[in-house]
Amino acid sequence: LGKCFIYGNQTKMKKNSTSLRVRLPALVFVLEILIVILYTLFVTYDNNANAKLQSNITILMENSLYRNYSFFADIQVMIFIGFGCLLAFFRLYGFGGMVFNFLTATFSIQWAILVQGFFQFYWDGKIHLGVLNLINAEFVCAVVLISFGAVLGKTSPVQLLVMALLEVPIFAVTEWAVVTYLKINDAGGSILIHMFACYFGLGVTFVLYRPNLNKGHVKEVTSYQSDMLSVMGTLFLWVFWPSFNSALTLKGDDQHRAVLHTFIGLSASTLTAFALSAMLNKNGKLTMADVQNVTLAGGVTVGASVDMMISPAAAYGLGILGCTACMLGYKYLSPFLSKNLRIQDQCGINNLHGLTGLIASLAGICAILFASEEVYGPKLQKLIPGIEPGLGRTAQEQALYQVAAMFGTVAVSAVGGMLTGLVLKVPFLASPDDESCFDDELFFNVPKDYNYIVGLTNSVDSDTLGFMAASSSHNLHAGFMINKNGFGANI
Amino acid sequence: LGKCFIYGNQTKMKKNSTSLRVRLPALVFVLEILIVILYTLFVTYDNNANAKLQSNITILMENSLYRNYSFFADIQVMIFIGFGCLLAFFRLYGFGGMVFNFLTATFSIQWAILVQGFFQFYWDGKIHLGVLNLINAEFVCAVVLISFGAVLGKTSPVQLLVMALLEVPIFAVTEWAVVTYLKINDAGGSILIHMFACYFGLGVTFVLYRPNLNKGHVKEVTSYQSDMLSVMGTLFLWVFWPSFNSALTLKGDDQHRAVLHTFIGLSASTLTAFALSAMLNKNGKLTMADVQNVTLAGGVTVGASVDMMISPAAAYGLGILGCTACMLGYKYLSPFLSKNLRIQDQCGINNLHGLTGLIASLAGICAILFASEEVYGPKLQKLIPGIEPGLGRTAQEQALYQVAAMFGTVAVSAVGGMLTGLVLKVPFLASPDDESCFDDELFFNVPKDYNYIVGLTNSVDSDTLGFMAASSSHNLHAGFMINKNGFGANI
Amino acid sequence: LGKCFIYGNQTKMKKNSTSLRVRLPALVFVLEILIVILYTLFVTYDNNANAKLQSNITILMENSLYRNYSFFADIQVMIFIGFGCLLAFFRLYGFGGMVFNFLTATFSIQWAILVQGFFQFYWDGKIHLGVLNLINAEFVCAVVLISFGAVLGKTSPVQLLVMALLEVPIFAVTEWAVVTYLKINDAGGSILIHMFACYFGLGVTFVLYRPNLNKGHVKEVTSYQSDMLSVMGTLFLWVFWPSFNSALTLKGDDQHRAVLHTFIGLSASTLTAFALSAMLNKNGKLTMADVQNVTLAGGVTVGASVDMMISPAAAYGLGILGCTACMLGYKYLSPFLSKNLRIQDQCGINNLHGLTGLIASLAGICAILFASEEVYGPKLQKLIPGIEPGLGRTAQEQALYQVAAMFGTVAVSAVGGMLTGLVLKVPFLASPDDESCFDDELFFNVPKDYNYIVGLTNSVDSDTLGFMAASSSHNLHAGFMINKNGFGANI
Repeated sequence: LGKCFIYGNQTKMKKNSTSLRVRLPALVFVLEILIVILYTLFVTYDNNANAKLQSNITILMENSLYRNYSFFADIQVMIFIGFGCLLAFFRLYGFGGMVFNFLTATFSIQWAILVQGFFQFYWDGKIHLGVLNLINAEFVCAVVLISFGAVLGKTSPVQLLVMALLEVPIFAVTEWAVVTYLKINDAGGSILIHMFACYFGLGVTFVLYRPNLNKGHVKEVTSYQSDMLSVMGTLFLWVFWPSFNSALTLKGDDQHRAVLHTFIGLSASTLTAFALSAMLNKNGKLTMADVQNVTLAGGVTVGASVDMMISPAAAYGLGILGCTACMLGYKYLSPFLSKNLRIQDQCGINNLHGLTGLIASLAGICAILFASEEVYGPKLQKLIPGIEPGLGRTAQEQALYQVAAMFGTVAVSAVGGMLTGLVLKVPFLASPDDESCFDDELFFNVPKDYNYIVGLTNSVDSDTLGFMAASSSHNLHAGFMINKNGFGANI
Repeated sequence: LGKCFIYGNQTKMKKNSTSLRVRLPALVFVLEILIVILYTLFVTYDNNANAKLQSNITILMENSLYRNYSFFADIQVMIFIGFGCLLAFFRLYGFGGMVFNFLTATFSIQWAILVQGFFQFYWDGKIHLGVLNLINAEFVCAVVLISFGAVLGKTSPVQLLVMALLEVPIFAVTEWAVVTYLKINDAGGSILIHMFACYFGLGVTFVLYRPNLNKGHVKEVTSYQSDMLSVMGTLFLWVFWPSFNSALTLKGDDQHRAVLHTFIGLSASTLTAFALSAMLNKNGKLTMADVQNVTLAGGVTVGASVDMMISPAAAYGLGILGCTACMLGYKYLSPFLSKNLRIQDQCGINNLHGLTGLIASLAGICAILFASEEVYGPKLQKLIPGIEPGLGRTAQEQALYQVAAMFGTVAVSAVGGMLTGLVLKVPFLASPDDESCFDDELFFNVPKDYNYIVGLTNSVDSDTLGFMAASSSHNLHAGFMINKNGFGANI
Repeated sequence: LGKCFIYGNQTKMKKNSTSLRVRLPALVFVLEILIVILYTLFVTYDNNANAKLQSNITILMENSLYRNYSFFADIQVMIFIGFGCLLAFFRLYGFGGMVFNFLTATFSIQWAILVQGFFQFYWDGKIHLGVLNLINAEFVCAVVLISFGAVLGKTSPVQLLVMALLEVPIFAVTEWAVVTYLKINDAGGSILIHMFACYFGLGVTFVLYRPNLNKGHVKEVTSYQSDMLSVMGTLFLWVFWPSFNSALTLKGDDQHRAVLHTFIGLSASTLTAFALSAMLNKNGKLTMADVQNVTLAGGVTVGASVDMMISPAAAYGLGILGCTACMLGYKYLSPFLSKNLRIQDQCGINNLHGLTGLIASLAGICAILFASEEVYGPKLQKLIPGIEPGLGRTAQEQALYQVAAMFGTVAVSAVGGMLTGLVLKVPFLASPDDESCFDDELFFNVPKDYNYIVGLTNSVDSDTLGFMAASSSHNLHAGFMINKNGFGANI
């Protein structure tokens, strides 16, 4: 690992190779062979997709496809376009944000179909594949992508695939244990999706700590275009979040409430985010990072009680509360974690998923404690699986199980994340040097105007350099010369 | 209000404060407290979302959620992404277009749930909230966003919230009166949505008249990127407009026809828009503003007769007619209104919503006059609520009611808009100075490359300056110096 | 046709007029009058959209609208936004890619409603229009847009309309013959959509061969922004491709399988595309063109067997196989075709639709040969229309019919494409000069910053000029002077 930085006009830096030419195909082909073998041996069609077990005449439109496909499509848009655009907010890492999201998501879903399928859709020796598996697998995928947010710009695609490879089974086991034994209420995935993903990601980034980046990085900036693209991602997530939170609830009024609560929660958090963004800025201006992230907090905070009869007003309050916690987290907690606890949380997932997930979980517990047959009618026990007659739990006891689920999930995910982080440090995985972080040129053939944008970045922003002020001034010269030649040839 | 413009190299202009630091949070928190109180006191679940009144076993998929949610989701995309991108067409006001649309839309819907809910979904002392309310509230939101188009780039977010605060109840009362007493046919909202929104917006902009901006503004330009983003917005509106026009029709063949007519009308207007755009341009080139706006005219013109048996050919003709009126409006009417009537209609809503709304209303009247049981069968009276037996109106009489609805709506909205405009002139609301219009720097923390784009705008476009040629040449120097320092430091 | 290229500082090039001022309106108005007449004479409502034939009370939600509309909406997104963004990948041809796609798609659908409607939805002397016609017409539209990919940047909008005018009927006849007489299995349109579109497009581009462009073109480059926009288009296509492939299958488990197979095929081809992209690049970096195109190959390769019981593992394998063929095609076949066979395939449709369509067709044949009642149950004959009892064909015979369909489709489309190409050479159609290819300025009023982007392109990329190095150096001087004046006025 002998790094050798020699700065000078005639010398080039010697770096660890980050060529993907062998690494990426090698890993992918091994994974694909594995997946094909497992698909061949273990995956068959769900009854609803099996020609022999269905009759097109009799139960045509009762096929689960028609109950679930539109929700699946909405979540697809969130995963591939919403996340993809949201993560493209860096000026020089738009390809990385959008394209690595694409790669990681695609692999995570394939892998989750197998691993999660084994725990949830396995019987008669086969995993039974239908559109419902796909929705569940997309949820696992969302977990991986949230964790990805913690290390955005600082990991190679090979590392991301390895992270997904490890995170998916750790999550699937946790989910299976929590759902099977603790029987928690968590339709929107506040505990299992958001908290798990957050602490897993924080675990990874804790191990991958880069001390040089704590003072900022010259390329850790947005551009006017990238900020707008990222807002588009936010809007796609915002618009389809009701589908996300309601996709796996019971059909009927439960799903209906989940849609309403999510919409109200998001509305409240959006309005609050604008107010707080202006209030906490010393010039009284709005910050795009707040618009991109904090507006979404309400979607998480209603998660664990999203199908309960919590009342529209409570959903509104949860939106305000979640947004406030998230905003204060971005303002005060993230810098603290970065400086003092070696946790460099690139996208602030601890604020948008951790703090809000915690609030959501507590709200879910309250919803269980206050649930009564007077409000819910006879189907109360169906809505809260933990208090079904057979188990003999009271609502109070179930509340304790929810707390246990929270602590258990956080513990498993944090430890799992740290172990995964250790694996990601293996040299073969093409981890970028500090200087090449947030830079698309490392892993992409960039178009020719990219050098021009780099030159602009170095010159325009040169007054605010933290780390790399010295080193990048050399790039600056080089980058500048390119531009100068281009523009100045005729002077 | 003592403005003091002193131009010079060493002095800075003294301006009214437009900091949002106190204003925006103050307004938002007051509104949020109000909303939470009203939600707590008055909002409960619709029967279809109430656990006690539903049984998941018996009437699972008959829940109104499944009839309406996909249409709701489509309209969400139109509101947040379609409008958001469409309004981001200014080179230096992309944040403002997209983000203020987000803010205004979010607040409008929350507010409409309460205000419109009081008129339409209120019984037993409660507003009953279901997905159908959300669709209706999104329609109110569309009204506010169309009006927003008239004052785009010239209003602060505080002003926009106040505008929504006033427009929503004025619209809700008008809608209630027109629907309850006049019982008009207007599935696509040609009168109530498009004409109301248009004349309200024109009323506001009439009062907010800025004489200095009549000769143009140096920042009133698009960029290559912003033009494309805006076309994306158009495409999202285009694609989902059939859902918009059909969301509130009767289910079954009525909704089916609404989809077909909207699609045909849009297709015809798109093709016509391309032809007219080239024909009316002296170099025979296409104009992006036409592609962004005029292509959509057909969606409005089929609105009032969208669920009637007008025939596909008539829908096609309406598309061509609406497009032609809209295009001529942009070419001749908008400049006339701006010069002679103090109406500065920034996005040309009078062309895309006013003129086309008028045509749509007339077409709706024709559709009623020519409706017969021979064509519609026994359900004719259900399709045209005005001629139901109990009311004792003939089709001819109902046509007069439609005319009355048009004039009444235009009168109320224009007056309401002017009164709202007066309120928006209150100094506290952070209205931008003339010079800061169409400029994201006023209300946003812009990324560092923004100054570079400003410099480019000032230099490249400096030959076409109208207003602000003198003043912005100073900015030009300043902006240039930043760039020069950036690029030139090493020379 | 006297072209006169004289290069020099004081002279301008004399070119054929490409003004759209007369040509485009003339063509459009003729087409619109034709369409209105045909709509008036021949188009009425489908029974599901006819007020007299429907009763809103009894068969409300059984209207075909509710079975098909969501699939239609998904395909709309693919056509207008997916294709539109994907084709906007050129740095200076973003308007052209996105906007000409809009124009061509809109016209193609209107025209297909009539032409295809005559073959498929015509009875009692009328074409019966419902949402199902729209889906079918969008498929025809997809055919035209794929062919458009072969000549992107080298054709005027007038030429594109004429191409659509000719391609739609040639396709409709072919489709009718193949479906009616050969009764092929091809739910995803591998043969009829992808292969037809591919060879039609190749036929057109063969005739429109431009020898000067074989060495590259200075404007044939992407930009950082355009590459990202294009990936967004890819993602929209990726996300909704399951809807595309399943829209016209039988409802129930058939449609369910079509969704699953498409999703799996796309996932496999995406993962493979990343691996191969890195492997085939000498620096081991990812190429955005691969991410934009090759990832989608799996959606095509599962097409002809998408509703069969081929097993998830086989769908996965088809994805890998299709992706590999597509990637190798881009790397080796496209340059070969361009150099040796006069086939300049701008977007590489031969790789993404031709090669993959071939693989899909062969896979479809295998699926038919291996189909048995043991796997499919009694409805096997419904799934494979060719082996219905009345026809008396065996599965082996039907396989031969599939082969015949392939050859027939390729032959008709290639000849049709070449004839269409000849028509497109008529001078009136405003074909761009070689130098004006890939340049939005020819057909659009471009915003002022466009000149700046052109200047940047000429200067930054000037070291890689092929054709036009000499001529554009003059532009470079001019373009530079604009920038220099802008930036340099204060030096």
